[in-house]
Amino acid sequence: MKINGQPHRTIWINEAGKLNVINQLSLPHQFEVSTLSNVDDVCQAISTMVVRGAGLIGAAAGYGMWIAAKQAPTDSLQSYDAYLRLQAARLQATRPTASNLAWAIERQLKKLDFGDTIAEKIAFIKAEAEAIANEDAEFCRLIGQHGLGLIQGLALSKPSKTVNVLTHCNAGWLAFVDFGSALSPIYAAHDAGLDVHVWVDETRPRNQGAGLTAWELACHGIPHTLIADNAGGHLMQHGLVDIVFTGADRVTRNGDAANKIGTYLKALAAQDNRIPFYVAFPSSTIDFSLNNGLSQIPIEERSGDEVRKVVGKLDDGLIAAVQICPDQTVARNWGFDVTPARLITGLLCERGICAASESGILGLFPEKV
Amino acid sequence: MKINGQPHRTIWINEAGKLNVINQLSLPHQFEVSTLSNVDDVCQAISTMVVRGAGLIGAAAGYGMWIAAKQAPTDSLQSYDAYLRLQAARLQATRPTASNLAWAIERQLKKLDFGDTIAEKIAFIKAEAEAIANEDAEFCRLIGQHGLGLIQGLALSKPSKTVNVLTHCNAGWLAFVDFGSALSPIYAAHDAGLDVHVWVDETRPRNQGAGLTAWELACHGIPHTLIADNAGGHLMQHGLVDIVFTGADRVTRNGDAANKIGTYLKALAAQDNRIPFYVAFPSSTIDFSLNNGLSQIPIEERSGDEVRKVVGKLDDGLIAAVQICPDQTVARNWGFDVTPARLITGLLCERGICAASESGILGLFPEKV
Repeated sequence: MKINGQPHRTIWINEAGKLNVINQLSLPHQFEVSTLSNVDDVCQAISTMVVRGAGLIGAAAGYGMWIAAKQAPTDSLQSYDAYLRLQAARLQATRPTASNLAWAIERQLKKLDFGDTIAEKIAFIKAEAEAIANEDAEFCRLIGQHGLGLIQGLALSKPSKTVNVLTHCNAGWLAFVDFGSALSPIYAAHDAGLDVHVWVDETRPRNQGAGLTAWELACHGIPHTLIADNAGGHLMQHGLVDIVFTGADRVTRNGDAANKIGTYLKALAAQDNRIPFYVAFPSSTIDFSLNNGLSQIPIEERSGDEVRKVVGKLDDGLIAAVQICPDQTVARNWGFDVTPARLITGLLCERGICAASESGILGLFPEKV
Repeated sequence: MKINGQPHRTIWINEAGKLNVINQLSLPHQFEVSTLSNVDDVCQAISTMVVRGAGLIGAAAGYGMWIAAKQAPTDSLQSYDAYLRLQAARLQATRPTASNLAWAIERQLKKLDFGDTIAEKIAFIKAEAEAIANEDAEFCRLIGQHGLGLIQGLALSKPSKTVNVLTHCNAGWLAFVDFGSALSPIYAAHDAGLDVHVWVDETRPRNQGAGLTAWELACHGIPHTLIADNAGGHLMQHGLVDIVFTGADRVTRNGDAANKIGTYLKALAAQDNRIPFYVAFPSSTIDFSLNNGLSQIPIEERSGDEVRKVVGKLDDGLIAAVQICPDQTVARNWGFDVTPARLITGLLCERGICAASESGILGLFPEKV
């Protein structure tokens, strides 16, 4: 997508052969590119959320394995392999919920047997990292094309009125390599000339809606309004939401979806008000080994300080954190919740739209039957 | 309730005959008492939320009418009356949703005919202001006694385990004159030796949970944990919430309840997980003239800056606001939502517990049939 007219991805190898990422901790107040030089840098970038979002942490892990391959000991293939497996485990441990992370690392580990020399092996792993990133971008573009029809249908049913979409967290292009998942249909609709407006949940505690979704929608010129996470139910009760699109960090075989904490509450409100609720993701997000999201998807618990303190821009332009509770208050901070398949109108991935059910998913992915 | 062992109310006439309030904008970082000297001060205190909460803004309006009476022109009873009616309208206009405001003003306007001299009239209005405040405190104390049984029942059903209560916003003693509504049963349970723990929703955008509920629970020694508003559904899905208590700003004759924005989402999650959901309020909160909360209760819309910026304490102890979104982002900010009666397990007021229905409410208030 474009920033000030210049096309960007969220992660790329620069001309000097270094891994660059957009530093998402600096947004929306500053646009900053960070260089990740070693596996420590990549692990740190993922765990501190310099890079975040299901697709992007998968892509970052893919590139992280390439950096590991370049920096692995070259005295023997055994020690090269052992080093890469160790770095894979370290990357895997950075965040537990998104299945894209394990998926990308698994793809890279399968490449360990390719190539006869270390140089060839590095080339295979680099090519796989680029393939993971390119696929993510292409799959997200396709999600937009498939989802476009849903918005077109709503636009046709309310002529000369704006289609109001609600989204939670950031599942835009900043959460992927390009295009995004939940926001991709919105970009496609806007580009197709449809009148679409987005209600942006601020998404406490990390405020990815306020900081990232609002920023990227503004970059692309999409009309949007920031709201507190608490407001979505009220909007739905009053006919101000036509459709909900969210992303996902892991989707089970039966269609349960883990996504940013609070997604489940919006799904309940959508159901209560008969508003279509769609979850969008590239297939790397599907964990075909699980069939019960609530009991099987590990939910990351992060520092309570993310709840106790809010980071933002002071009047003088400096970035600071303010504490919103008494000094001694203890907070807990789960990063995700699981929306049961029964609350999801449909799933949206690169192969199309399906019901949130095992038969729906396997209809699109018959090779997984 | 006590602060550092000293009993306090949220509003009182001090020894010098001035109206004092706890300045809730300074909490939790500083405990500060403000003096309200004229009707402008009272209006400002209500609209800027120096005082807030259904019961407290009713009490503040009652005392505001006393201040108006003291400062009214005394040249004729007509001009005295006209002045008081004008000030009543100004107080009424400060906030639209809570019915306690109109209720308290209405009580005071009925006193205009009492007393033969201006001095007598002022005395009647002062007595009525004190009666409104005392009743609010006593009714909230009774709410605690009635609600205690609900928590006792849960404690008996899970012996030697903590009863986990979730609450949204602040419906504690800071929102009333004393004791509170939603928190009153919790104080009663704690004082009765029950093992009770409270999940405190931070309650964006004004963070009354993080700033006020956490503060007052800590003052009273009640175990509690701060969470993002987004987290409640996840907690309920995992059996970590036994009961929900919220307050209300207006309850209709049929049991619909307007309360802080986001309450509806918690009610949906409680229903989905079969967790009892109770709404607690003194009867001054019931608007017997309405029978459809969604279409009839006016919902206040406040400045979008309350969403765009978060106020808190910097590392150096200074209080500041940080902006969490891009400079140009537009935000909207509705203060309340309506939880339909069908989602409410029971209503809790000074006369006892009843079903959230017209027959339930009229059973407790037969004089309103």
